[in-house]
Formats: sequence, structure tokens, C-alpha cells
Amino acid sequence: MTNPTAAMLVIGDEILSGRTRDTNTHYIAHELTQRGIRLMEARVVADETADIVAAVNALRARWDHVFTSGGIGPTHDDITADAIAAAFGVPITHRADAMALLGAHYDRAGLPFNDARQRMARIPDGATLIDNPVSTAPGFTIGNVHVMAGVPNIFQAMLAGVLPTLTGGAPLLSQSLRVLRGEGEIAGPFGALAADFPDLSMGSYPFTINGAFGTNLVIRGTDASRLDAAMQRLLALFG
Amino acid sequence: MTNPTAAMLVIGDEILSGRTRDTNTHYIAHELTQRGIRLMEARVVADETADIVAAVNALRARWDHVFTSGGIGPTHDDITADAIAAAFGVPITHRADAMALLGAHYDRAGLPFNDARQRMARIPDGATLIDNPVSTAPGFTIGNVHVMAGVPNIFQAMLAGVLPTLTGGAPLLSQSLRVLRGEGEIAGPFGALAADFPDLSMGSYPFTINGAFGTNLVIRGTDASRLDAAMQRLLALFG
Repeated sequence: MTNPTAAMLVIGDEILSGRTRDTNTHYIAHELTQRGIRLMEARVVADETADIVAAVNALRARWDHVFTSGGIGPTHDDITADAIAAAFGVPITHRADAMALLGAHYDRAGLPFNDARQRMARIPDGATLIDNPVSTAPGFTIGNVHVMAGVPNIFQAMLAGVLPTLTGGAPLLSQSLRVLRGEGEIAGPFGALAADFPDLSMGSYPFTINGAFGTNLVIRGTDASRLDAAMQRLLALFG
Repeated sequence: MTNPTAAMLVIGDEILSGRTRDTNTHYIAHELTQRGIRLMEARVVADETADIVAAVNALRARWDHVFTSGGIGPTHDDITADAIAAAFGVPITHRADAMALLGAHYDRAGLPFNDARQRMARIPDGATLIDNPVSTAPGFTIGNVHVMAGVPNIFQAMLAGVLPTLTGGAPLLSQSLRVLRGEGEIAGPFGALAADFPDLSMGSYPFTINGAFGTNLVIRGTDASRLDAAMQRLLALFG
């Protein structure tokens, strides 16, 4: 397939310790699929500069887009912006446009624009700001890396600003059939069908219901007529 | 810290397409933390042999344990066992002990032990079987890699069999304080406190409630008396 590719990088000790459940990966997976961008890989790394740098550099070299979540707030454990600057080998400074945005925001709120809050205006050289309509502190895009907040509603708002700027691909379509038979029973003919449609991706996902086995069979691809043809064959086998 | 380390590798197109939400990473994060094993990294890769091999080899070289979920069923898209064998450079065969387990299981169920079902007895040479009390088809451990099913209740049952065989570390403790102030307000003193306790990990996690900002401050470590000391200081600052 020629659809653009992407990777997701979640940054944060709180995910790895089990304290917080990551929801951003599932959210972006769905959003990207709808736009014809294929999410190929996801990673979670700790709040460690070397780990963030290594992951960003591996992912941006391999995939068309990299999306990160987490670590861009005002506290000492928010090290993502510095790590991204290190990954790209560029300086990072308190940038004037981000300082102006944040200064005006705290002025309106009657809160001091202290050192910690100014920290959120530190942006790697050459980056473009990503709008944060929820709490002002911006994300940024540098090269093919889009750096966003970890708080889910802010992540989602930032992503809504980024996605329209990206070139999508043919929509990734899927059709599925739920059959009340175990995988072991349908695997042979289902595998043969998959071999007949090498341009489509076919997966089977088992479940149990009332103690009996069932399987969801899913066909994915970009050509609707090919999906229809495969679905007709699938219905003839198991419908 | 000298606690053992671990990585999680989730294998499956269905996670990356957004069709299925991965719950195994959050589950294992919690289980490992309780046993003093530090989850340091998590990845999700597609059902592609080269990607699985590369991820397994990177993770098993770096961390003490690697846990995988997904891709060990009977269908054509279940390629994890073969990919693990390729990663370790060992042959994979229908192994006698796994064939016996599965043969007896399908015999009891009155179902044919067909080619697809026999596929689940393919185990890399040198691996030890992991018991599957839910649906019999075993997982396996080879070297420091523990290969388990993706279906959450089977993953959890397999993990329950594996964890007691691993050497844990001092329990990873945490204490937290919920304060009704924004991160930008507490970041300065909280960062200074963190610098005074380099043996502990301190994180801050913002939230909003009724339109106001709040922050959960979390202290993590293995020495209960140090956590208590840090918590006293934290309460004096923000309690």
C-alpha cells in the first residue's frame, strides 16, 4: 500500500508504572486509520532523555510521521521538548511567540507568569507551534515529529489541529464477519482465502460467549470492490 | 535502583488499526510494579515477521525480561512463534508435549485436531511451555522472552503462571498527594524537593475539575522511610 505511515510515542513513567492507562494510542490509531494514514508502530518510554532521543530518532527515520504525547508541562519531569531538541541536534530557547501566547493567557487569568510556566515556552529551533485551545501551552512540529500533550483532551485538541495539515491516503476500509465458530475450525479456509487476496489484510480475533467460541473475521484494504469480492467469498464460506 | 527490568511487546495489526484497544500493557504494568519488576518500555508492532524479530531482539538485549502478547493462535496471521524462533535463530517444530496437551483437549471436546489446531503446538527449540488453563494452547518462555496470548483473560492466566518463576525486587512503593493547584504553581518547589531526593522518582499529573486545575503529585521508590520523609516535606509544602 502507498498510504503514508506513522508511529506513536508515549512518554511517561506513569504509564509504565501502571498508575495511568494510556488512551492516546487507541485514539490516534482510530483517527489516523480514518484518514488513510497507517499507524505502523507504537512505543511507550520512560521520562529519560536518552530513551526519548533514541526512540524519536529510530521512529522518525523509519516512518512518515511521528506523534508524541506527554512531558511538555511545567514541572521538572517534563523533559520532552529538551529531548526532541537533542534528537534533532538543535538549540532550544524560550521562544517569543510562545512567550507572548502564554504571557497573555496568565495575564487574563490573573496568575503570575513564573519560571515554571515560562518553561512551557521552550521550543526547539525551527519548530512550528501546535495550537492548544484547551490550556494555551503549545505543542510543536519539527521535521516529521509532532509533539503534543499527554492529557487526553489536550492531546485530542492538538491532534485536531495537526491532522488537516497532513497528506492522507486512500481511506483504510474494513469489513467484518462475526461467526460462532472457533478459530481452529475456520483457520484453514480463511487462510486460503487470504492467500487469494494478497492486496488485502485479513485477521481473525477470537472471543468466547456463554462458554462457546466465536471469531471476528476482519478484512482490511483500500479498494472497496476488492473488499466486497472477498466478503462475498467469506459469506459463502461461513455466513 | 537494582530492581529487575522488563519490556512489553504487543503484536497485532488490530491494535494499530484502532479496532481493538490493548489492555494487556496496563495490566502487566500493574502486576510487575507490585512484584518490584520495573517496566521500562512497551511497544506495539504489526503482524510482520521482520518487525517482530527486530523488536524482540532489541528488547531482550536491553532488559531483563520481555513479555509478548498476541499472534499465537491457529490462523494464518498468527506468526509470533515463527518470528520468535527466527529472532533466536532456532528451529521450530510441532513439539510432542504440546501436541499431547492439545490432542487430549480436542479429543475431550469431540473436535477434530486438524492442521490449524496442530499449528498451536509449534514451539521454538529450547523453549519451556507456559500453561494455558483457559483454552489449553500453550505459551512459551525462551531465554528471557515470555510469549503469551493476546486475548486478555488468557494473557492474564498465563502471566499468573509465569510471574512466580521470576525473581522480583524490592516492592516499588508510591505515595501521592492530590492538590487543587495547577502544575505551574507548584512546579518550582516540587522540582526543588525532587532534587533533594535523587533516590526517589517524583511526577506530577495535572487534571481539571469543575473548570479548575489540580495536580496529583506522586512519589515512587523502594525505601519506605525515604518515601515517608519526602511525603512529610510534600505535605508541609502543599498539604
